[in-house]
Amino acid sequence: MIELNNIIIDPLILSAIREDITYDDVSTSAVVSDEKATVDIIAKEDGIIAGLAVFKRVFELLSDEVDFSFTKHDGDFVKDKELIGTVRGLAKVLLSGERVALNYLQRMSGIATYTNRMVERLSGSEIKLLDTRKTTPNMRVFEKYAVKIGGGLNHRYNLSDGVLLKDNHIGAAGGVGAAIIKAREYAPFVRKIEVETENLEMVREAIGHGADIIMLDNMSIEMIKEAVEIIGGKAEIECSGNIDFSNFEKYKNLGIDYISSGSITYAAKPLDISMKNLQLFN
Amino acid sequence: MIELNNIIIDPLILSAIREDITYDDVSTSAVVSDEKATVDIIAKEDGIIAGLAVFKRVFELLSDEVDFSFTKHDGDFVKDKELIGTVRGLAKVLLSGERVALNYLQRMSGIATYTNRMVERLSGSEIKLLDTRKTTPNMRVFEKYAVKIGGGLNHRYNLSDGVLLKDNHIGAAGGVGAAIIKAREYAPFVRKIEVETENLEMVREAIGHGADIIMLDNMSIEMIKEAVEIIGGKAEIECSGNIDFSNFEKYKNLGIDYISSGSITYAAKPLDISMKNLQLFN
Amino acid sequence: MIELNNIIIDPLILSAIREDITYDDVSTSAVVSDEKATVDIIAKEDGIIAGLAVFKRVFELLSDEVDFSFTKHDGDFVKDKELIGTVRGLAKVLLSGERVALNYLQRMSGIATYTNRMVERLSGSEIKLLDTRKTTPNMRVFEKYAVKIGGGLNHRYNLSDGVLLKDNHIGAAGGVGAAIIKAREYAPFVRKIEVETENLEMVREAIGHGADIIMLDNMSIEMIKEAVEIIGGKAEIECSGNIDFSNFEKYKNLGIDYISSGSITYAAKPLDISMKNLQLFN
Amino acid sequence: MIELNNIIIDPLILSAIREDITYDDVSTSAVVSDEKATVDIIAKEDGIIAGLAVFKRVFELLSDEVDFSFTKHDGDFVKDKELIGTVRGLAKVLLSGERVALNYLQRMSGIATYTNRMVERLSGSEIKLLDTRKTTPNMRVFEKYAVKIGGGLNHRYNLSDGVLLKDNHIGAAGGVGAAIIKAREYAPFVRKIEVETENLEMVREAIGHGADIIMLDNMSIEMIKEAVEIIGGKAEIECSGNIDFSNFEKYKNLGIDYISSGSITYAAKPLDISMKNLQLFN
Amino acid sequence: MIELNNIIIDPLILSAIREDITYDDVSTSAVVSDEKATVDIIAKEDGIIAGLAVFKRVFELLSDEVDFSFTKHDGDFVKDKELIGTVRGLAKVLLSGERVALNYLQRMSGIATYTNRMVERLSGSEIKLLDTRKTTPNMRVFEKYAVKIGGGLNHRYNLSDGVLLKDNHIGAAGGVGAAIIKAREYAPFVRKIEVETENLEMVREAIGHGADIIMLDNMSIEMIKEAVEIIGGKAEIECSGNIDFSNFEKYKNLGIDYISSGSITYAAKPLDISMKNLQLFN
Amino acid sequence: MIELNNIIIDPLILSAIREDITYDDVSTSAVVSDEKATVDIIAKEDGIIAGLAVFKRVFELLSDEVDFSFTKHDGDFVKDKELIGTVRGLAKVLLSGERVALNYLQRMSGIATYTNRMVERLSGSEIKLLDTRKTTPNMRVFEKYAVKIGGGLNHRYNLSDGVLLKDNHIGAAGGVGAAIIKAREYAPFVRKIEVETENLEMVREAIGHGADIIMLDNMSIEMIKEAVEIIGGKAEIECSGNIDFSNFEKYKNLGIDYISSGSITYAAKPLDISMKNLQLFN
Repeated sequence: MIELNNIIIDPLILSAIREDITYDDVSTSAVVSDEKATVDIIAKEDGIIAGLAVFKRVFELLSDEVDFSFTKHDGDFVKDKELIGTVRGLAKVLLSGERVALNYLQRMSGIATYTNRMVERLSGSEIKLLDTRKTTPNMRVFEKYAVKIGGGLNHRYNLSDGVLLKDNHIGAAGGVGAAIIKAREYAPFVRKIEVETENLEMVREAIGHGADIIMLDNMSIEMIKEAVEIIGGKAEIECSGNIDFSNFEKYKNLGIDYISSGSITYAAKPLDISMKNLQLFN
Repeated sequence: MIELNNIIIDPLILSAIREDITYDDVSTSAVVSDEKATVDIIAKEDGIIAGLAVFKRVFELLSDEVDFSFTKHDGDFVKDKELIGTVRGLAKVLLSGERVALNYLQRMSGIATYTNRMVERLSGSEIKLLDTRKTTPNMRVFEKYAVKIGGGLNHRYNLSDGVLLKDNHIGAAGGVGAAIIKAREYAPFVRKIEVETENLEMVREAIGHGADIIMLDNMSIEMIKEAVEIIGGKAEIECSGNIDFSNFEKYKNLGIDYISSGSITYAAKPLDISMKNLQLFN
Repeated sequence: MIELNNIIIDPLILSAIREDITYDDVSTSAVVSDEKATVDIIAKEDGIIAGLAVFKRVFELLSDEVDFSFTKHDGDFVKDKELIGTVRGLAKVLLSGERVALNYLQRMSGIATYTNRMVERLSGSEIKLLDTRKTTPNMRVFEKYAVKIGGGLNHRYNLSDGVLLKDNHIGAAGGVGAAIIKAREYAPFVRKIEVETENLEMVREAIGHGADIIMLDNMSIEMIKEAVEIIGGKAEIECSGNIDFSNFEKYKNLGIDYISSGSITYAAKPLDISMKNLQLFN
Repeated sequence: MIELNNIIIDPLILSAIREDITYDDVSTSAVVSDEKATVDIIAKEDGIIAGLAVFKRVFELLSDEVDFSFTKHDGDFVKDKELIGTVRGLAKVLLSGERVALNYLQRMSGIATYTNRMVERLSGSEIKLLDTRKTTPNMRVFEKYAVKIGGGLNHRYNLSDGVLLKDNHIGAAGGVGAAIIKAREYAPFVRKIEVETENLEMVREAIGHGADIIMLDNMSIEMIKEAVEIIGGKAEIECSGNIDFSNFEKYKNLGIDYISSGSITYAAKPLDISMKNLQLFN
Repeated sequence: MIELNNIIIDPLILSAIREDITYDDVSTSAVVSDEKATVDIIAKEDGIIAGLAVFKRVFELLSDEVDFSFTKHDGDFVKDKELIGTVRGLAKVLLSGERVALNYLQRMSGIATYTNRMVERLSGSEIKLLDTRKTTPNMRVFEKYAVKIGGGLNHRYNLSDGVLLKDNHIGAAGGVGAAIIKAREYAPFVRKIEVETENLEMVREAIGHGADIIMLDNMSIEMIKEAVEIIGGKAEIECSGNIDFSNFEKYKNLGIDYISSGSITYAAKPLDISMKNLQLFN
Repeated sequence: MIELNNIIIDPLILSAIREDITYDDVSTSAVVSDEKATVDIIAKEDGIIAGLAVFKRVFELLSDEVDFSFTKHDGDFVKDKELIGTVRGLAKVLLSGERVALNYLQRMSGIATYTNRMVERLSGSEIKLLDTRKTTPNMRVFEKYAVKIGGGLNHRYNLSDGVLLKDNHIGAAGGVGAAIIKAREYAPFVRKIEVETENLEMVREAIGHGADIIMLDNMSIEMIKEAVEIIGGKAEIECSGNIDFSNFEKYKNLGIDYISSGSITYAAKPLDISMKNLQLFN
C-alpha cells in the first residue's frame, strides 16, 4: 500500500538521468544498434529490497518498450547471489539506464536493510523507530519510502507539514508555553504540536500547555525516566539525539513511544546489487 | 580554482529547498517575525570541509539579505568544536534553511574527509585515487567536487563525456578490437578510449588497438603485475573492483596509475556539523 | 508573521506573467521608451487588503528597479477611494505588470474581505472558521494566505499533510474503526486523524477508536447537538457541508469548535482595486 | 472545434496536482490498495458543462489506466442530479484526483453558465459578449475556453496578441493620433488597433487615424449614441466599464457591436458538481 | 523602443548556457582563479548590430559582477575592426560566456544586416518587408527582434496570434468564403483575417467575404497586377513565395503593400564578431 | 547507430512547439474538427536528409495517434520532388505541427548536405572534417547530429567535456607548458588536452609538455608544414580558422588529421522540404 507517485518522482528521476547523459551514451551508441536483450538483477549481499518501482521507472522514462519480471518485491529479504528480477528491452536502453537505476535501488535497499535491522532488534518492545529530515537533498521521497519498507515509521515529511518547536523557536517566542500558544494559533489546526525539551522544567511546561508530542533530546536514561513520569501519558514521547545502531537498544522499556535516528538515512551503506548476464537477441 | 557554477547548482538546490518547504516553515513563522540573528557553524568531529559555497547558496536563494563570515574554507581541516563560520540574516531564514544547508555541507565534507584519508595513505606512491559514477542521484556535481577537495581526481563525469567499453559493449561489438574501432569512429575525437579488461588476453588486444586507458577489473595482484608488464607504458592503467578503505593500500607500487573506488561517494559518513548559538537582535 | 516565500510563489507568478506576455507588451512598447513613472494603487470599494507582497513581486520579477511605498498593509481595512500605496519605476514595467498584479491582489483581497465578514459575525462565539481544498488550481498558497489575513484558520494544506477519512476511505477500509487503525499505521505519526461522519453511529465509532477530529458532515442542528454530547470533549469537532454566508450563524453555541466553508475561497468576489494617476517623469 | 491542447495545459494541470500532493495522498494510500472502481460525476445544480477534457486530463496524468464514459459534453445543459459521466480506474487514482479535477470542472462550468445566461439575454440583439484579461492567474486558457463554450467571444488573449491603447498609452504617446501611428509602426501588421476612448473628441481622433476598434469606456448611454453616430460604421465598437449581469441589457439596440465584461471570469460562481457512488471491484 | 523582456528570454538563454556547460568549464577553471579582466567586442566585417542586450544577459546570468560599456547600439552600422564595446568582470566569466554570447549576437546581427540590405533596396517604394514563421526553433523571439532592428516588419508571431487561411484550411472549410466565416466566428475578434490565394478567383472570393489581408502566393507579376486591381484598396496585399535577395526588387511599384521572405531568418549568414584583447588585472 | 535521445530532445522540442502555439492554432481550429488526414513530405531540392526522428517527435508530442511511413532515412540522398515519407493523423495535428517539424528537418538536412559536400571533396585525403561550438543556441544536439549524418566528425560537445587551451587560457596560466600542467591536474583524467597554437614556438612547447592534440590556428600553409614536421606524429593535428567551402581543399596532403569549420553549422542553407497533398478522410 505504500506509494511512490510518478507525478512526484518523474521530475527527480529525469533530472538524475540527464545528470548521467548530457546528450548521448557514447560508449553504448558506438557499439549497439537495435538489438534487444535481457539482463538479470542480482543481489550481491543479503538485505531488504526497496525501490523496484524507481528502478523500473528509470528504464520506462528512457523507452516505451521495456518489460520487467520481478521475482522479489519491495520489502522482501534477498540473499547474496539471489535473482531479484529480469529486464527485457533494447540493449542500449538497458546499458544506458543501468547505473542510474542501480544508484537508486542500492541506496534505497541499503536504507531499508539498515532500518530493518534496528526494527528487528526493537521487536518485543513498545518502541517505534522514526526517521528525520537528515535526508540526502532531492532524495527525501525515496529515502522516507525506504524507511517504511524497512519497518520504520516516518516523522514529519518537511517543515510545512509538522510543527516541531526547537530551542531557537522557544527562545524567539519567549518560552515553551508562549511557543506552543503561538504555534497553535498559527499552524493549520490539523498539525500536532511537538516540543523539543532539554530538561524536566521544559517537559513540565510543554505538558502544561498541551503539547501533543514531547521530544526528549539528548537526555540521560535517568532523566528520561523522570520525564516519562512527569508526562504521565498526556503526550506521546520521542527520544532523539545521536541514536544509532551502537546505542539504540538502551531506550527499550523506559515507557517512551518513539526513537528517531538520522543515521537510518545517512549512515546506511548501499546494498550491493548488480545487473548481470546481458543476453542480446534480435 | 575548483568551481561550482550557480547556473548548474541553483536548480538542484531550489528543488532541495522546495522538498523541505511545501508552502511555509510553520514552526518558524509561528514564533519569529522580522528579527535578525547570527548563528555559528561548528564542527562536531574532525574532518575536511567541502561545500561552503553550497551551504551559502541555500541561504542566498532564500533571502537577498544574508551575510557570511567564514573562518574555514573548502579543503581546510577542522577539529571537533572548531568554528567554521558565522551566518547573519533574518532569523527565520537562518532557521528555515538550516537543515538543507547542513544536509549538503555534511555529505560533501564527509566525502572530502573519506577521500582525503585514502589519499593521505597513498602519498609517497604514484597512485592517484579516482571516483566513479556510483554517486547519489542529483548529487553528482556536489559529490565529484567533494572528491577533488579531498585530494582525489575525477573520472569521467557521465556517459556522454567519456568512453568506457565494458564487457557488454565488447560483447555487442564482437571483441575488444572491434569495440575500440567503433568507439573511435563514433565518439567525438577528443574522448580518450578506455577499455575494461578481465584477463590478460583482453589487455593485449586493447593495447594492440591503441586504447588510451586500460582498466584492470577485479584482477589479482599477480595478474595486475603481468598486465602492467604487457602494457609497458603504452596506456594509462586503472585498477578497479571492490576497492575501499579496507584494501586499497595493496595496490601501491605495482606500476599502475589510478585506482577507482565507488566507496568514496557512497560509503563516506556525513561529517557532523551543526548550527549553534543563534543570537537574535533587532 | 504570516509568510509567502518567494521560493514558493515565484514559479507561479512567473507563469502568470508569461501567460499575459508571450513575447512583448506591444501596446506599451509602441509608445513608451525609458520614461520613469509613479502610479497609485486605489481601493474602489471597502474591504480588507491581502496580497501586497504578491502585487509587489510581480513588478520585481519584471524589473530590478521598482520601488513601493505602501500606506496600507495586509490585513488593513480600506475604504472606497483610499490610497493603498504608490509604485515607482519604469513606465513600461508599471503598465505591463498592472493586470497580473491586480488579478492577484483583487482576488486575495476579495477572499480576505469575505472571510473577515464571516469571522466578524462569529465573534463572541467559540467557533473558528476554516477553509477547504476547494481552491482555484495553482492559487492555493495565495488563497489560503488570504483566508488567514481575513481572520480564518487553515485546514490541511493538501492531501499529503492531513489525514481526513471520508466515506469512500471508510468504505474501502471496511468501517470507521478499521480506517482509523490503518491510517494511524500508515501516516507519519505527526498527522492528526480526522474522520468525516454522517450519523451518530459513525461518531461513536470514531471516538471509540481515538480520532483526533470529528467532522460532522451535513448534519441537522439536532444531530449536531447529540454528536457534541457523544464526543464529550474527547475530540475536536468540525461542522461542514454547504455552509456559507447565508447560514453559517446557526452553528453558533452548539459546542462545536470549527466550521469549514469552501465558499470563502470560491464565492468571494474580487475586491475592486485599480492603478491610477500614472505620472511620467525623466 | 474549440481546442484545449495538452501541450499547453499539461504543465498547468501537473502544477495543480503537485499543489495538492506533496509526496503522497496519505488518507487514500492508508486504506486503498490495488482495487479498481467506478465513480459517477453528478451535477448538483442546473448549468452549462465546460472543461470535461481538463477533468479527464487530471486523471490521465495520474494514471495510464483510467477510462471515461461521458453522457454530457462541453456546452451541454445539465440539470440538478443529472449524470455527467462515469470514470473507471484504480480507486486510489479516482480518490486522489477528485478534488483537483472538480476544482477545474466546477470553475469552468460556472463561467460557461454565467456567460451563457448573459448571452441568452442578448439574443435578438446585435451585441456580442466579450471577456477581458481579468482572469485568474494561471487559469486564462481554461477561463477563456469556458467563455466560448458559454457562447461568448474572446477578446485578445494577452498583451502580445492585441493592441489596446489606453489612457496611459495615449498620454505617453502625446495623443490619440500619435499613439495609433506609433502602434501601427511597431506592432506586427496583423494586429488590429483598438483605442480606449473616454469622450467624443477622442472618438473623433481615433476614427480620423483609422483605428480598427473603438472602445467606449464608461460612457453614458447618451454619449454612446453620439459616438456611434460619429463612428458611422468606420470601426467596430466595444462598450466597456463595470458591465455585469445587473446592467448589461441597457446596451442593446444602440448600434454597438460588443460589450466586454470582466465579471464573466471573476464573478461566476463555480457550478456545483460532485463525484458520487464510488463502487470498488477487483 | 523595441523590447526583449528578461522574463521571456532568460529561460532560453539559461538553456543555451547549460547546453555549453554540463558542470564546469574545465579549461578555464584549470588556469584562471579570481582574476578580473576586460575584453573588447570587435566587428570583423561590416554590418548592423543586433542583440547586445542578449549578449549582455548571457554574462549577467553567469555572474552578478560584470559591467558593460557599449560604443555601438542595436541598429548601428559597424565597420570591420570597429569596437562594439568592452566587458569587464571575472576573467573566468568572460571566458566561459564568450561562445554562447557570440552565438546569439552574431546570428542576430547577421539577420539585421541581411534584412537591412533588402530594406535599403526597397526604399523609395511603398513596399514593406515582412518576416515569416520559418525561424530557428527556440530562436523566434531573437530572430524577429533582429528583423525589426534591420528595418523589417514582423508578420504574426505564431499560430495563436494571427489568422492565416492557407490552401489546406480552405479545403477543409469547403472554400474561401466558408473559411473566412468560420475564422471570424472562432478567432478572437481582434485578429485580422488573412487569406492565402493562388488565383484570381480566390482573390475575388476573399475580397467578397471581407478578408483583411490577401496574400498573393507564388503569383506571376501579371497575375499580381490583376489581383491588385481586383482588390482595389479593400484589403492589404502581401506577396509571398520564394522571395529572396535575388528577386525581391521586381515586386516594386505593383501596388502591393508587403513582401514576406523566409530567407531573412534562415539565409542570413552570422555577422563575424569576436571578443579580443583580454586584459587580466587584480 | 547515431542517437537522439527523447529524454534530451523533448524539452527543446516542447519549447519550440510552445513558441509557435501560445494557446491554440486559431486558423486550424476554426476550420478543422476531428477529420483525419495524410500528408506527404516532399524534397524541393537535392540533398541529404537528417532529422526525421525530430520531425516525427514534433507530431508525437502533439498527439498520441499519428503514424509515419518513411521512404527515406537519415543519411539518404534525396532528389528534388522525391517523396521522403507520409504522415497520417488528425488533420489539425498535421497542420499545427507542420512548421516546427519542417523548421527542424530543413535546418538539420541543410547542415548534413553542406557537410557532406565538403566530406565528399575531402575523400581520398586523410583529413577528417570537424564541427565546432559555433552552433545555434538550443540547437547543438540537433546540429552536431546532422554533422555526423553528413559524414563529419564531432569535436568536443561543450566546455565541460573537452579541454581546449586557447590564447587567453595560456596567457592566464603563464605559458603553454604551465597551462597544460594545470589542465592535466584539474580536468578529469579522461579528457585529452588540446592546445591552440599560433606559432611554431607554441607548437614546440605544447609537444614538449605532452599535449594530445595541437590546433594550428590561422597558420599559413608554409607554417603548417613546419608544424607538422615539429609534431612528428606525437600528437593529433587540427587546422582551424576561417576554413569553409571556399578554401578547405588546400589543407589536403599536408599531414594534418583534422580541419574544423564553424561554417558547417552556421553557413548551411536549410534544405527546401515541404509538406504537400493533404488528404482529409473520416
